[in-house]
Amino acid sequence: MLGNLYENQDCSAARALEIVGERWSLLILRDAMFRGFTRFSEFQRSLGIATNVLAKRLDSLVASGIFQESAPSGGGHREYRLTRKGLELMPVIIALTEWGDRWVGQGPVRFRESQGNEIVRLKLVSEDGSEVAAAQIKAVRI
Amino acid sequence: MLGNLYENQDCSAARALEIVGERWSLLILRDAMFRGFTRFSEFQRSLGIATNVLAKRLDSLVASGIFQESAPSGGGHREYRLTRKGLELMPVIIALTEWGDRWVGQGPVRFRESQGNEIVRLKLVSEDGSEVAAAQIKAVRI
Repeated sequence: MLGNLYENQDCSAARALEIVGERWSLLILRDAMFRGFTRFSEFQRSLGIATNVLAKRLDSLVASGIFQESAPSGGGHREYRLTRKGLELMPVIIALTEWGDRWVGQGPVRFRESQGNEIVRLKLVSEDGSEVAAAQIKAVRI
Repeated sequence: MLGNLYENQDCSAARALEIVGERWSLLILRDAMFRGFTRFSEFQRSLGIATNVLAKRLDSLVASGIFQESAPSGGGHREYRLTRKGLELMPVIIALTEWGDRWVGQGPVRFRESQGNEIVRLKLVSEDGSEVAAAQIKAVRI
């Protein structure tokens, strides 16, 4: 288990990992973002994890405001919909995918604009819009 | 523990998570990328984790080709240096940081170009260089 020091680190990456830094959580987000899944049974079928583990993960993502849970009405299914906070984790998923494509093996997925169909990539850019290589980036404290 | 189905998912994000999808691993990478840490004792002091856990994580990152380990020579310290494969995980760390800054709380770090000092951001862009909102992106199988 992660200790207190971890949670107390004054670092946004560390605090983001407190919320989504669990592999299943990121794969649940992937399925919600790119497969449009909203139901427990859809996530369960896709990921093949134990229902108690999935229930715990979904509850935790709802508690963190990543998903909004809609109560089932009239015999319908309970749904988990990404909030804006959840949707904005997309760059994390795309960054992992792009790295995996390059360094682990080309996967079957490309990211495209829903309109226009152009390929979308993640880029590190400076204020003037020019791309910056990872080796040319430093972190500074403000 | 994660089951086999997880490892067998034909998805680059899932396969990337097999390698770096552990919170301490990502914080070790953060410290290597942005604090320039190379020594066991530096990571240990920064993260405050048990030495056996840290040793396991570092070994695993070396085995995956994320770090190159240099044997100590002449009484020096063993060093862990990021490979290109490791350095290219920077967008994952920056994506987590940007999301944490926005949704969990502003952290103390900004990313800048090492030359020129301009602020660097992560952007989702289409082929013509224009920025694309997360809500406008879909994943398509190739």
